[in-house]
Amino acid sequence: MQAERCGLTAPVGLVPTMGYLHEGHLSLVDAARRENPTVVATIFVNPTQFGPQEDFKRYPRDETRDLKLLETAGTDVIFIPDPAEMYPPGYDSWVDIGGITARLEGAARPGHFRGVATVCAKLFNITRPDVAYFGQKDAQQVAVIKKMIAELNMNFSISIQPTVRETDGLAQSSRNSYLSAAERRAAPVLYRALSLARERWQTGETDANKLRQLITKTIGEEAGTKIDYISIADNATLEELTTVKSPALVSLAVRFGGTRLIDNIVL
Amino acid sequence: MQAERCGLTAPVGLVPTMGYLHEGHLSLVDAARRENPTVVATIFVNPTQFGPQEDFKRYPRDETRDLKLLETAGTDVIFIPDPAEMYPPGYDSWVDIGGITARLEGAARPGHFRGVATVCAKLFNITRPDVAYFGQKDAQQVAVIKKMIAELNMNFSISIQPTVRETDGLAQSSRNSYLSAAERRAAPVLYRALSLARERWQTGETDANKLRQLITKTIGEEAGTKIDYISIADNATLEELTTVKSPALVSLAVRFGGTRLIDNIVL
Repeated sequence: MQAERCGLTAPVGLVPTMGYLHEGHLSLVDAARRENPTVVATIFVNPTQFGPQEDFKRYPRDETRDLKLLETAGTDVIFIPDPAEMYPPGYDSWVDIGGITARLEGAARPGHFRGVATVCAKLFNITRPDVAYFGQKDAQQVAVIKKMIAELNMNFSISIQPTVRETDGLAQSSRNSYLSAAERRAAPVLYRALSLARERWQTGETDANKLRQLITKTIGEEAGTKIDYISIADNATLEELTTVKSPALVSLAVRFGGTRLIDNIVL
Repeated sequence: MQAERCGLTAPVGLVPTMGYLHEGHLSLVDAARRENPTVVATIFVNPTQFGPQEDFKRYPRDETRDLKLLETAGTDVIFIPDPAEMYPPGYDSWVDIGGITARLEGAARPGHFRGVATVCAKLFNITRPDVAYFGQKDAQQVAVIKKMIAELNMNFSISIQPTVRETDGLAQSSRNSYLSAAERRAAPVLYRALSLARERWQTGETDANKLRQLITKTIGEEAGTKIDYISIADNATLEELTTVKSPALVSLAVRFGGTRLIDNIVL
């Protein structure tokens, strides 16, 4: 990939993925395609960002379908490294981003963002993008990678694309494939709850606790949901707010049976 | 620096320093000069690689003299960042290299190599070298940076230059300026002890403990010395050896009054 990179026409747009692509990923490829002569995509289910009890082994994979989708979308280069090549025996080099990684997903998934930052640093060094494309769906990941790029002086920009949703509002995610039919019917409650909070805020409610309660109550009305967290936080520092001040990130993680989904909106 | 970098003729040779230059640094510039059309040097006394009880504040500085020496040696670009620019308020991004950093200097100076790896990653991202030049004098630093470059897939090479010594054998170091006249007279014992161990090994001694004892005894014969460590280790993993097997790194850290000096040879 490093050798191939030398021959590519700049600027190069990078779309890093864990595969099992959906319209969210393809919207990143579309944006990269519009803005760069060369689009590089990576497919790598990164073991170091999964906890020991998490879904690394059963994370959905379909390389044949992914390759077709990426080719149709106009990807020039697809990089699919082998885990043993990315993490050879004795591997022990890590990028740790402090502060914002301790909250929300970082609190629920210890070590997750160390894995994310490390694999992104590696993929950035290998593909040397001019612009890297990420989805707003993973809002905290976006904040962590922005901080890493700025603080480690990586010399390229990041472009954040809006969350792509199903017609009923459910954010597209590879993990939606885990949902049973009943869970799938229940899952749109996440975006319904976020949208209710946005409406309430737009009509004057700035008490963050009242908005958190509204979201909690709305999600609780669906049977079989289990809330991991409901957060209303500063969009850059991810510190929880008492009074909503724009831009605020409203984010949540909720379990439907064994499946954990996340979603967010920015007020 | 990042903007300046775009106009430079490749390959670019990088010489990262903490300033207060001596012939060791200048030998790195010479090597970079011979092998690259462009030579970039950096001067930055990196606060994050000093412990709270260490000599960050009193570390010797002489920018005027450094600039003259670098210019005479044929440096094209000299980058002298401000600490507040390298580590702005809220800074919290770190590169941690595990394993080999726990031993020797890492054991004696907790956090030291996290600071070294982080500042090097930043300087590498800012200056984007084709070859980076380091001195064998800081052998463990060399091992850490080699591991970081390989494992984080940084796309350039590293060139290690031999330790430059005074005529009496003392390894050149900015910290030699701390030595009193008496300490300066005693300090060549380090290289004398290392050389004795090498002779003994060359004439057939492979028992690492016997060589460690020889070094310890030789240094102990100088008054006012205090040994931090004497190590005979695998040159790549830095694991201590029972039987010397080439290439082995023989390294030591010894205090002369308040001044801590390091030196090493490879068998």
